[in-house]
Amino acid sequence: MSPTITAFANSPDRGRGLARDMRVRWALEEVGQPYNVRLVSFAELKQSDHVARQPFGQIPTYQDGDLTLFESGAIVLHIAQLHPGLLPTDANARARAISWMFAALATVEPPVLELQEAQFAEGDKPWTEQRLPLVKDRIRVRLAELARCLGDADWLDGDFSAGDLMMVHVLLRLAPSGLLDEFPGLAAYCARAKARPAYQRAFAAQLAVFTDSQAI
Amino acid sequence: MSPTITAFANSPDRGRGLARDMRVRWALEEVGQPYNVRLVSFAELKQSDHVARQPFGQIPTYQDGDLTLFESGAIVLHIAQLHPGLLPTDANARARAISWMFAALATVEPPVLELQEAQFAEGDKPWTEQRLPLVKDRIRVRLAELARCLGDADWLDGDFSAGDLMMVHVLLRLAPSGLLDEFPGLAAYCARAKARPAYQRAFAAQLAVFTDSQAI
Repeated sequence: MSPTITAFANSPDRGRGLARDMRVRWALEEVGQPYNVRLVSFAELKQSDHVARQPFGQIPTYQDGDLTLFESGAIVLHIAQLHPGLLPTDANARARAISWMFAALATVEPPVLELQEAQFAEGDKPWTEQRLPLVKDRIRVRLAELARCLGDADWLDGDFSAGDLMMVHVLLRLAPSGLLDEFPGLAAYCARAKARPAYQRAFAAQLAVFTDSQAI
Repeated sequence: MSPTITAFANSPDRGRGLARDMRVRWALEEVGQPYNVRLVSFAELKQSDHVARQPFGQIPTYQDGDLTLFESGAIVLHIAQLHPGLLPTDANARARAISWMFAALATVEPPVLELQEAQFAEGDKPWTEQRLPLVKDRIRVRLAELARCLGDADWLDGDFSAGDLMMVHVLLRLAPSGLLDEFPGLAAYCARAKARPAYQRAFAAQLAVFTDSQAI
């Protein structure tokens, strides 16, 4: 039996591949593993069946036989440890690739999430217009550090890894803001990742969910 | 040779154990591994020697022979994979404990960091007083979900794991705000963790750095 992941029945990104199921789809495509998808409505996200799988009522989750996992980082790491293709075999290089996964989620993504909160949860607040430049500057600090570290390399540390997959997906969430275009090296890094056949298959699969939902 | 970690020479938390080196110290104490500490000043954090170890100019880092790691999550996971004591031996339980590490860093910590930014980076802004309740409410959502999931259990999933270590340390960063006290189950969870001898040894070690810095 292939594993089953959960994804939004109606993704708020309208099929742009920015929701976190994209990370898991992409990882499964990179390692060549088929998977099933259970679509979850916004109402179902907070209901007990789903909360039993995901305590915070989010997507994605991952079920494989007796195992249920949540958190895109944990799921991608699990897939990368089960199947070759997303982590180096050398133990030290493997640990470093995992460092980049955590860096994507714990250092780069928090200010990106803060921008989303500012734009959506606080979009109607009187302070938001004045405050947005500060939030964007906090993101620019991280992007400049990341761009310096990447330099002219194709990927963050040797071959493409789960660390690049996570980092690129976090960065892609900035594309609508225009911030990514301020760092051509990072924009090119994301473009290289998006050109991967596994990314393209994953993107098409999540887009099909959106397209189908519109056809109903 | 024991591994060497980096920590603040002058921690902004004044020895309260809230900086991220505490997570690594605690993990090393849980598995009974000695370690060395290199103290880094604020100026040194952004200098090339340290940036070569830590692209974002943060602490902690971890060096063990040829291996250099950064990100507290990656370092704690590495320690937990090398030594028994922080992850279950059963493969599924192990993957679930790692899910909790990611949940701590990618789902619970981002709104906690947002509160810190609001209080420190934006403490002098005209909107901060009005905005703080919104930020705190976003944290309360996560704390309520976490408290419901923990229920009456001692730890998040079976025995104490690296997932609990990460989650507790993220929660402890909320102690100064009073938010943790609104969730007695979570406050008790943190108290149980703080009573562990390994926590206490780690706490004493980081406090000694602060005390020594004051004595100069």
